[in-house]
Amino acid sequence: MRNKIVVQKYGGTSIGDVDKLKLIAKKVVEKKSEGFSPVVVVSAMGKTTDQLVEMSEKVIFNETEPDLREKDTLLSTGELVSATLLAMSIKSLGQDVISLSGPQAGIFTDQIHGSARISDINTERMMNEINKNKILIIAGFQGINTEGDITTLGRGGSDTTAVALAAALRADVCEIFTDVEGIYTTDPRVVSTARKIDYINYEDMLEMAVLGAKMHPRSIELASVYNVPVYVAGTFSETKGTLIVKGENMENNKTVTGIAIDKNVSKITVKKIKNVPGTAASILKPLSDRSISIDVIVQNIPMDGYIDFSFSVSDDDLQRAYEILMDQKNLDFEEIIKGKGFAKISLVGTGMQNAPGYATEMFNALGKKEINIEMITTSEIRITCLINEKDVNVAVNALHSTFELDKE
Amino acid sequence: MRNKIVVQKYGGTSIGDVDKLKLIAKKVVEKKSEGFSPVVVVSAMGKTTDQLVEMSEKVIFNETEPDLREKDTLLSTGELVSATLLAMSIKSLGQDVISLSGPQAGIFTDQIHGSARISDINTERMMNEINKNKILIIAGFQGINTEGDITTLGRGGSDTTAVALAAALRADVCEIFTDVEGIYTTDPRVVSTARKIDYINYEDMLEMAVLGAKMHPRSIELASVYNVPVYVAGTFSETKGTLIVKGENMENNKTVTGIAIDKNVSKITVKKIKNVPGTAASILKPLSDRSISIDVIVQNIPMDGYIDFSFSVSDDDLQRAYEILMDQKNLDFEEIIKGKGFAKISLVGTGMQNAPGYATEMFNALGKKEINIEMITTSEIRITCLINEKDVNVAVNALHSTFELDKE
Repeated sequence: MRNKIVVQKYGGTSIGDVDKLKLIAKKVVEKKSEGFSPVVVVSAMGKTTDQLVEMSEKVIFNETEPDLREKDTLLSTGELVSATLLAMSIKSLGQDVISLSGPQAGIFTDQIHGSARISDINTERMMNEINKNKILIIAGFQGINTEGDITTLGRGGSDTTAVALAAALRADVCEIFTDVEGIYTTDPRVVSTARKIDYINYEDMLEMAVLGAKMHPRSIELASVYNVPVYVAGTFSETKGTLIVKGENMENNKTVTGIAIDKNVSKITVKKIKNVPGTAASILKPLSDRSISIDVIVQNIPMDGYIDFSFSVSDDDLQRAYEILMDQKNLDFEEIIKGKGFAKISLVGTGMQNAPGYATEMFNALGKKEINIEMITTSEIRITCLINEKDVNVAVNALHSTFELDKE
Repeated sequence: MRNKIVVQKYGGTSIGDVDKLKLIAKKVVEKKSEGFSPVVVVSAMGKTTDQLVEMSEKVIFNETEPDLREKDTLLSTGELVSATLLAMSIKSLGQDVISLSGPQAGIFTDQIHGSARISDINTERMMNEINKNKILIIAGFQGINTEGDITTLGRGGSDTTAVALAAALRADVCEIFTDVEGIYTTDPRVVSTARKIDYINYEDMLEMAVLGAKMHPRSIELASVYNVPVYVAGTFSETKGTLIVKGENMENNKTVTGIAIDKNVSKITVKKIKNVPGTAASILKPLSDRSISIDVIVQNIPMDGYIDFSFSVSDDDLQRAYEILMDQKNLDFEEIIKGKGFAKISLVGTGMQNAPGYATEMFNALGKKEINIEMITTSEIRITCLINEKDVNVAVNALHSTFELDKE
């Protein structure tokens, strides 16, 4: 019988230099000796990607952007370097091992350079090598399109590679090793009593994705669709990490799972705009056309046929969003108010959907601390409040203890 | 009618940094504007390859060698980086351009990792892109084998890529741009009157390959077989370079073309070994089995059934060669004498083969300067003397003027 396949992903600062690669080599060999077939996905070492991006900007004439097709091949070299070095290191420990680039691993994508999506994985070569009892090292973040050109998967690319391979190879589990030890109830730098969670379901993890483990929502989505258990843990830590699984496997039946924090949020309010069908779209479409992400959206109750329309954007996009809106000749409004220095705090938990009262309890807790709530949105499993950034620490600590997240 | 294809190769320090890449971008665009279809082969930037080799040595446990398959993929990233950066730079000048890796360019090789030989070039994709009027940037030094694995071509790899592409694409000429301005009659640092040669034939160039232009003999051989004219010139120089062509095109009918100098040579003499069939092989095979290159070989006239057997190796190999020979239990000799500090000087010229007396003239010229000749070998178009390294300057200057190489 064949060994069980386990996909491991190493990234972040945990593969920052040659010495760390050697530690990872030993860790992989250990997994093999425990009777598993390891398939290891690596991202680029340390600051490699940033350095390549910088070179691509310097080599350009005029004020153009680097060509995306060329940039993808350029960036893909970072993962090739770490994959081949890790394979050499493991080989020198006397193990059978082979590194595969995205194309060699059969990872096919669409044509969108810079943020390609995986369209298909041909596992033939990988399965051949696994059946020869080899350890596989896969260059993350990359694939090949139907033109035979290298593509990269964009943000969270290597996590996505790992989860997709785990699904395609029917691996038992996808282990994501990184520089944090797992998923926490909230940011441990903000709340000293923040607790590492042993189990979390896909839905909650999606909402928490911006937290601690920094996994990209996209890879969580993929894991959820293919029902791949994802284990997040510290690369060089002996501490137990967090297992992300389907809801029914949960030991934790708390209704609130954690509190997500998102800083650097700005707010734009379009004052007194006529409330006709299509008003929201006429405001938001010019922004999404320019790739500006809009997040929390609130529109007040119409007064005399007019509304105030507010939404949040990231600090980085504020000025551009403002200018784009001021340029819209067809929009008829009184004024546009813009403001920086906000933060979003979100209560997350699949358990909340059938248990009312959480929103009220959240607002009460914030009110007691005299924290002003600027905007509110809710989904089935999340309540988000926009507050002043300076209030984040007090607010999150209050909520963490109100919902007893510090207790097992 | 299609534009004429010209293959250009840029390497060495001439692509040492981003600023130099930008200068090359302009040079390529200029060639395009003159009505050519440029196919540009690049090597890795500056010290990139050395740095990658260093990392591969550091990541290894025990005293093993890095796995050659993995090392090939690792090293191939250096050329991918320079190729994509150059393509981006040219693109930002408003030109249609595409970079291709060795595999994308259809360069197939045998299985020998680290020193693969090109077995076939499928020009389909390259011709498609050329027909779309695109400038092609090709990552040199690399190909793909029938396993779908990356191979590298070893020393002189990018020159070989350039010549092979010129042959496969039926290019008008293969232009090799580097940090010297062409081929000289001898090393200009040794002889102040050394002259740049306008034309040289393949045979002479093969012998001279170690000189000035530092082209690898292998690429010259390939150029000769496919009759590809090779133009060697300085990357950022306006001075005319050297054209390497078939013999009949030569303007220069001098018999001696140039003097090659090779320093760091050591000499080993096996004293008083029995002269039976297979003696030479029994001495040399253990060395070639360990990849030690033997060069000049001399064996004296047998005396009482015994001979002295001498040969030259590079300084770096001397100690190892000595130890290997001392370890050969089946060799029966009196002693082994080893010595460092020699140099080879070679008179090169296809014209010499039908004109006797050059050897005598060479020995006379050296004798007049009281230079001792340690060993001699000759081929049809070359006479090589092993002398003391301290005598090189005097010897080469004497020969350069004896054979009137300083005169047009």
